[in-house]
Amino acid sequence: MKITANYKNLTKAVSVVEKVVSRNPSLPILNNILLKTENGRLKISATNLEVGINYFLGAKIDETGEIAVPARIFSDFINSLNEDKITLTTKNTILNINTDKYKTQILGFDPKEFPIIPKIKTDIYSVIPSKILKNSLSMVLDSVAVSETRPELAGVFIQFNSKQLILAATDSFRLTERVVEIKSKQDNYFILPRNTVVELIRLLGDVNNDINIRYSDNQVLFSTDEVEIISRLVDGNYPDYKKVIPEKYISRLLVKKDVLEKHVRLAGIFSSNIADIKLSCNEKNLTINAKNSDKGEFQVVTEAVLKNEPFDISLNYYYLLDGLKIIPTEHVIIEYTGQGSPLVLRPEHDAKDLTYLIMPLRK
Amino acid sequence: MKITANYKNLTKAVSVVEKVVSRNPSLPILNNILLKTENGRLKISATNLEVGINYFLGAKIDETGEIAVPARIFSDFINSLNEDKITLTTKNTILNINTDKYKTQILGFDPKEFPIIPKIKTDIYSVIPSKILKNSLSMVLDSVAVSETRPELAGVFIQFNSKQLILAATDSFRLTERVVEIKSKQDNYFILPRNTVVELIRLLGDVNNDINIRYSDNQVLFSTDEVEIISRLVDGNYPDYKKVIPEKYISRLLVKKDVLEKHVRLAGIFSSNIADIKLSCNEKNLTINAKNSDKGEFQVVTEAVLKNEPFDISLNYYYLLDGLKIIPTEHVIIEYTGQGSPLVLRPEHDAKDLTYLIMPLRK
Repeated sequence: MKITANYKNLTKAVSVVEKVVSRNPSLPILNNILLKTENGRLKISATNLEVGINYFLGAKIDETGEIAVPARIFSDFINSLNEDKITLTTKNTILNINTDKYKTQILGFDPKEFPIIPKIKTDIYSVIPSKILKNSLSMVLDSVAVSETRPELAGVFIQFNSKQLILAATDSFRLTERVVEIKSKQDNYFILPRNTVVELIRLLGDVNNDINIRYSDNQVLFSTDEVEIISRLVDGNYPDYKKVIPEKYISRLLVKKDVLEKHVRLAGIFSSNIADIKLSCNEKNLTINAKNSDKGEFQVVTEAVLKNEPFDISLNYYYLLDGLKIIPTEHVIIEYTGQGSPLVLRPEHDAKDLTYLIMPLRK
Repeated sequence: MKITANYKNLTKAVSVVEKVVSRNPSLPILNNILLKTENGRLKISATNLEVGINYFLGAKIDETGEIAVPARIFSDFINSLNEDKITLTTKNTILNINTDKYKTQILGFDPKEFPIIPKIKTDIYSVIPSKILKNSLSMVLDSVAVSETRPELAGVFIQFNSKQLILAATDSFRLTERVVEIKSKQDNYFILPRNTVVELIRLLGDVNNDINIRYSDNQVLFSTDEVEIISRLVDGNYPDYKKVIPEKYISRLLVKKDVLEKHVRLAGIFSSNIADIKLSCNEKNLTINAKNSDKGEFQVVTEAVLKNEPFDISLNYYYLLDGLKIIPTEHVIIEYTGQGSPLVLRPEHDAKDLTYLIMPLRK
């Protein structure tokens, strides 16, 4: 292989791809990235066997070929340079990077040892602007179960239909549902693993184009012209979460979001040992109380507009903060649906495009 | 106690003092800061028994008093507020912070449980502008031994005399000596513990005034009108490090510092398993070679001006980078003093105000 690439494009591609590289002591080839000429471009690939990534880069190709090189060394090295162009030459499993000043030999590996990243050639299901996908995944991420005791909850449930794309996540303590107006050719659904969601959010920060989604055989492909992200899917059936979302509310509160966030944070400092704080509403105000026998106590009054009955509720302040964090509007709607029923947070425009539920505490 | 303080001044004082607070499970009172009215000001104190700090803050004092409060809770709480003024009131061991909106009770402790921070009332030894002290301590810090196997090396050796202030540190692999033109009233010296040096560097970032130094009974006090930092000193005799600094050189090299730093960093990626790289000099160039049987190899040529004989030397690239990092000039002087003798780095103006030695490798 002999190729010459623009230095900035190469370092950007490597910085994107290396995020997927795992430190895998039992399978050291996964510490490598694969450099390969393909259809007149340079393809840079990495995989952790759960998520794989291919990044395609324009390059002047004098000689085709491929090599696997340790991601860390290659990345450290090229990031410490500062060139206009960079020429990569291989000789067997050695990668040479030479300029007037430098002579470099990086010891690589036989590309045949590198795991094959599956290809998905089915039709495109859906096309999503990358920002919308990134924002939607970010909104639901905190509600994904971290534990693997119920593997189907350790991912985001994604549903496609002819009108909407719906993302949902729950760890059984809270639940987030995000609905966006994106049409798909066919109805479908799958569970995307938590790690893939985390990687996708990171990777989509570097991508501005529309994302094509393809699906087959328990794998999903997110792609643009430049980048392909292939992930395995979670086996299992996602619970029928819709039935947990209350259809009606008893009382509804409208509060300024950033003020409430600040007050909840202050109350959290004095929350109980199970992180509980107490909200009490009357017509004009929301009062937050917190008491911790080791730390002290705190009370704060927040202006609010209440519809219907006054109510009291105790809840985990982290869950409340996580919910407030994803509300994109200046005010937040809080719906009280009864003791033993979830508390519901929504954006102020009252659409159903974002729903955050805090489940009642089991006492 | 009842005092009212400016909010910004209070949060700044707390942020400075809390840096000294340790998480000490065997002596939980050390997790607290002491608030005390003293001579018309509010004194905020913390100690980890090695370093103590007093910060004096202008405040309107309606009622004198004192209380120990958990540093973390107090700091988290006041940092989450945003007020103009803040009123602190105590009742026994409870601290109240109330405004129109908030009611807060923080559970504190009897101030008598708080360790006494020693007072030093001797004459001022020396007065040093805080920036000079901070820079000088920062220059020698990396050479202080991290291990405590030789306790006297786990600190900075500080010497005062009628002309100069001299700071030295060595971990026996490298040595740094910094000389500044600061007069002292009396000759003296002591060893300042590594942790104190780290705390001082952090604290001096917030201080612009001159620092007064007092010394007595194995304790040292660094103070301004606003802040007092008291530290224990290291017992033991510092080795006669001066005899390790070579008086003559065999060859001397002048190199552009940032270029050399970049090249050493690149070579470091391919350094041997004991972090070795090789420097070879001729009249015009410095060539750096690095070879690692697992990673590959690297060579780079750097422009340089050599005086006297060409030479070769192998050394640990981390030690070379640490030395280059503290050289404040555009070029660096590298003095070769023979195989088995130290390599010496100096600023280009050739003064003796900063000397960095890399000891020869013992093979």
